[in-house]
Amino acid sequence: MNSKVAIIMGSDSDLPVMKEAAEILDEFAVEYELTVVSAHRTPERLYNYAENAEKNNFDVIIAGAGGAAHLPGMTAAVTDLPVIGVPVKTSKLNGLDSLYSIVQMPPGVPVATVAINGAKNAALLAVQILARKDPELREKQKEYREKMKNKVLATASSLEE
Amino acid sequence: MNSKVAIIMGSDSDLPVMKEAAEILDEFAVEYELTVVSAHRTPERLYNYAENAEKNNFDVIIAGAGGAAHLPGMTAAVTDLPVIGVPVKTSKLNGLDSLYSIVQMPPGVPVATVAINGAKNAALLAVQILARKDPELREKQKEYREKMKNKVLATASSLEE
Amino acid sequence: MNSKVAIIMGSDSDLPVMKEAAEILDEFAVEYELTVVSAHRTPERLYNYAENAEKNNFDVIIAGAGGAAHLPGMTAAVTDLPVIGVPVKTSKLNGLDSLYSIVQMPPGVPVATVAINGAKNAALLAVQILARKDPELREKQKEYREKMKNKVLATASSLEE
Amino acid sequence: MNSKVAIIMGSDSDLPVMKEAAEILDEFAVEYELTVVSAHRTPERLYNYAENAEKNNFDVIIAGAGGAAHLPGMTAAVTDLPVIGVPVKTSKLNGLDSLYSIVQMPPGVPVATVAINGAKNAALLAVQILARKDPELREKQKEYREKMKNKVLATASSLEE
Amino acid sequence: MNSKVAIIMGSDSDLPVMKEAAEILDEFAVEYELTVVSAHRTPERLYNYAENAEKNNFDVIIAGAGGAAHLPGMTAAVTDLPVIGVPVKTSKLNGLDSLYSIVQMPPGVPVATVAINGAKNAALLAVQILARKDPELREKQKEYREKMKNKVLATASSLEE
Amino acid sequence: MNSKVAIIMGSDSDLPVMKEAAEILDEFAVEYELTVVSAHRTPERLYNYAENAEKNNFDVIIAGAGGAAHLPGMTAAVTDLPVIGVPVKTSKLNGLDSLYSIVQMPPGVPVATVAINGAKNAALLAVQILARKDPELREKQKEYREKMKNKVLATASSLEE
Amino acid sequence: MNSKVAIIMGSDSDLPVMKEAAEILDEFAVEYELTVVSAHRTPERLYNYAENAEKNNFDVIIAGAGGAAHLPGMTAAVTDLPVIGVPVKTSKLNGLDSLYSIVQMPPGVPVATVAINGAKNAALLAVQILARKDPELREKQKEYREKMKNKVLATASSLEE
Amino acid sequence: MNSKVAIIMGSDSDLPVMKEAAEILDEFAVEYELTVVSAHRTPERLYNYAENAEKNNFDVIIAGAGGAAHLPGMTAAVTDLPVIGVPVKTSKLNGLDSLYSIVQMPPGVPVATVAINGAKNAALLAVQILARKDPELREKQKEYREKMKNKVLATASSLEE
Repeated sequence: MNSKVAIIMGSDSDLPVMKEAAEILDEFAVEYELTVVSAHRTPERLYNYAENAEKNNFDVIIAGAGGAAHLPGMTAAVTDLPVIGVPVKTSKLNGLDSLYSIVQMPPGVPVATVAINGAKNAALLAVQILARKDPELREKQKEYREKMKNKVLATASSLEE
Repeated sequence: MNSKVAIIMGSDSDLPVMKEAAEILDEFAVEYELTVVSAHRTPERLYNYAENAEKNNFDVIIAGAGGAAHLPGMTAAVTDLPVIGVPVKTSKLNGLDSLYSIVQMPPGVPVATVAINGAKNAALLAVQILARKDPELREKQKEYREKMKNKVLATASSLEE
Repeated sequence: MNSKVAIIMGSDSDLPVMKEAAEILDEFAVEYELTVVSAHRTPERLYNYAENAEKNNFDVIIAGAGGAAHLPGMTAAVTDLPVIGVPVKTSKLNGLDSLYSIVQMPPGVPVATVAINGAKNAALLAVQILARKDPELREKQKEYREKMKNKVLATASSLEE
Repeated sequence: MNSKVAIIMGSDSDLPVMKEAAEILDEFAVEYELTVVSAHRTPERLYNYAENAEKNNFDVIIAGAGGAAHLPGMTAAVTDLPVIGVPVKTSKLNGLDSLYSIVQMPPGVPVATVAINGAKNAALLAVQILARKDPELREKQKEYREKMKNKVLATASSLEE
Repeated sequence: MNSKVAIIMGSDSDLPVMKEAAEILDEFAVEYELTVVSAHRTPERLYNYAENAEKNNFDVIIAGAGGAAHLPGMTAAVTDLPVIGVPVKTSKLNGLDSLYSIVQMPPGVPVATVAINGAKNAALLAVQILARKDPELREKQKEYREKMKNKVLATASSLEE
Repeated sequence: MNSKVAIIMGSDSDLPVMKEAAEILDEFAVEYELTVVSAHRTPERLYNYAENAEKNNFDVIIAGAGGAAHLPGMTAAVTDLPVIGVPVKTSKLNGLDSLYSIVQMPPGVPVATVAINGAKNAALLAVQILARKDPELREKQKEYREKMKNKVLATASSLEE
Repeated sequence: MNSKVAIIMGSDSDLPVMKEAAEILDEFAVEYELTVVSAHRTPERLYNYAENAEKNNFDVIIAGAGGAAHLPGMTAAVTDLPVIGVPVKTSKLNGLDSLYSIVQMPPGVPVATVAINGAKNAALLAVQILARKDPELREKQKEYREKMKNKVLATASSLEE
Repeated sequence: MNSKVAIIMGSDSDLPVMKEAAEILDEFAVEYELTVVSAHRTPERLYNYAENAEKNNFDVIIAGAGGAAHLPGMTAAVTDLPVIGVPVKTSKLNGLDSLYSIVQMPPGVPVATVAINGAKNAALLAVQILARKDPELREKQKEYREKMKNKVLATASSLEE
């Protein structure tokens, strides 16, 4: 059975940020499901989604939310899967509210928090987790790193000319 | 049937703050229940507690929590009762994390937020809400306000001497 | 006698934010008055407005203000009605000044604070308060919640396709 | 008729901070009255105090308050006298809430804000204002400045030895 | 000899903000001088300007600056005149750097700080100070306050219709 | 070959915080190594440690640091293993500096950040990651969650009595 | 052998900010190299660049980076040359994250930090350092200061007219 | 003529922090003068001190100050020597006010800012600057770095046992 990642977000207004996670998973050929699960507007759905995530063959959940961002933490409260939280930038407090609401979890229930709007890194973190049991992914990680390095070196060369 | 207030908190470490709410309700002779409901460690209990609060004859819920404080917001996500949130001061971010996590709720699900460690005001707000349908409480509000004013005036007199 | 809500704001520059409260009350068919009461430019008017609010058959006051936002707190200082404070976003400190000025009230005088620019939630909180003595409003609350949930589920479905 | 300064504060818990203002005024032999005026617990008293301040021969009002500190701004809303605001340090937000609530006044109603717990400077500012119409005070200002300078030079000398 | 106000700023990029102070002084027919004095680029000029301000018949100095805003505080260090500081909004830290640099003065050297970009209130504060020795200005203050109040009442009326 | 976790920290002053991670791993019987690797004082050691971590059979690295906390991010820059960052509270900026330095990583190099001083959750997150390939750990997760829940319920019962 | 400055940055998106450093060095006729060195994407390159900087006849390194800005600190960890850090403004936390990540270095490894986006000052600081061993540069410093002063005086004159 | 460093501070209350700079310079056998120069209480002294620093054979100035910390910036405004600013922690805003007041200098006048209370690093930075023209100091730098590294390695060894 293949590994699968769930990408959930509190509102479809988070989609422009969160779709970057999907693009990275596409690049690594990791299967995923992307949907909206609102902690505040559909608490029951959140509960069921998190409760069944492991049975539904997910290995990692990426959850993005803004403001009083409860989605990642409440998901982590229900499942034993690793939950990666993406604090989405807000127009008022710049995403500081999202960051605090996601990262300051109490002892016992961790959320692996990435940068504000850091959906891309959330997906790379998911790949790192999956790679622990998937040697093929480990190869792809090396290629990705190599490509990233070469891009910087190319920029450096053109600047130094 | 008398009005009743639920005072819930994320952890018993919040008790020194939250018991001030109980003391105010005692002063106004308002019935209440005080207990611990952890959003992160007992999500199912939170869901059931909030779901049944109205049936259990509560009119208002006061919820205190610190850090990534999800208890007030998740309670408000499940019940139609007014939920009053008390951001509890934390040793790291001084309760700013608690405040942001509680007050920055998305449209559709309000939490009536009071000051950091403002449990006393949470109870007074509950009294204000209950007083809307209870003329006796309205009389007690006037007395309380009068007492408060007189205390300031007495201090002022002694300072001016 | 029907319930009535007062929506007041410090300046008409707050109107684009505060009219969202009026729209929600329209949706719930709750009667309201909307006006400008400046704590700093018309302190006497503020005093009189708050003093007479209960006699004028208001049950709840929603007060929005920005910067050194004194309107909600000073209103609460004069009336026994529940006062809901809306911190309006400012161009300089993003509304953090408004939030602190409204939420950090001293013991004895609560303001039920909602999110920065959270006028919609202020109105929903007013509905929750009024619903405690109005069974019809309680029915409307359920419908509102249901509609909100269905909107999320529809978005989720379209995303999952 | 001599000049007179009013030193008011929101609560007697502000006294340890605010009495430093009194000490400076004593040093400059400026007459003053020191008392408690709570914006939130005695709004009427605040209104009357500010309304009559000029008639009562005050020239400057120093107002200290903490948290959602409305006392300086509301005093300024009622009187035409210069109002000096002292943001008192709070145990939760370190006085940042007090500072924002006092300094971010809207156009039309200024408060002359000094540092957090800066009661001493509030009094010196009052002296600067009074000195504009009192040549004797101007002499005392020069002496004060000289003393201050000499104290630094003495410290410098002892350090350089 | 008439009263005179100095309006100085750290850079001509502060002019759009600081000219609002000039407009208010025009409205009150208070004489003023407006110029650029950079604490960092022309420290000697700053020193001389402040040193001679009293001799040059200024009664009040309004100083606006942004970032590490040293102009108001250094002016206050040299003169015994009241110095009013205007923290100018910056593109990076929103003027919080300006505010802290201006308001957090050490004991002995006050700066009367107004809101971020609050040049208008700086001028009104200057008027309040000058009015202490100028009965005519006191009359104008009353008119200004009246006009301000009436403007709010007019807005209120049009909203309530 | 068993899974193994590296717990590294920037300085032994971080040990009181970081040893909580070790205690959790002991509780789950997960093998670990705990040591000091200073990004700033021993950059070469950091490079080698991270470079060889995978070869040395580590599956996850937990890195704690305070202030300009570069250890987690630089470790993540060198290895493909998941790196969990623990922002250690500082005496000056309360750990906000640590948090920003760890969580705000650029696209391409994620660090899974937990709460300030959240070493316990860092270890639980490591367990969640290892559990993805270790069914025994998944059983232990369930027991841990059950114990945590029961502790809350016991507290709740004693409070409700 | 002439003095030489290295201007490095974490990404070419920092170029619009960092090229201001180059312009200043051009103005002072100081030789420099400008390139991209990513701490996170090319850690080995960073290590080598810093390690060899002194041998490559650099006297000062200017390093600009944004977010979890590790480039200046890690460069300082490897070389004994003075390293000047430029916190680049970020779209989310306004450069506060960059500032904290760069300035809050632990004892033993300093980074000379300038203002957010302060690349111009970074170059002037480099000139100040080089001038300590280069009398010609000291002359140019005086001219630069003179020009700067005259520009302010010209603006002042035109404003005062 | 030997190199010499000036260590100045705004008040002798900064001495416990600033003497750490002296201790490092002792360790490197760099000559220094340590004294108090208050920007606000002795502006003339500041002006003279900075003006004559180069003539008095100083190569670098280390300036520590807290709150509205103008000493480093004003010193830099007067001298062409490199000025290193040490933001001293304050009891109210934790040194954030000091940091902003020192680091956010306008273009043209740099201050090399170190961490809050980072006097030790200020001295190391001074050594780095002096070392550019003093080969002996460069040798001592290498020894210092080696000692620092060995201390970490010793701690690491004892932890790994």
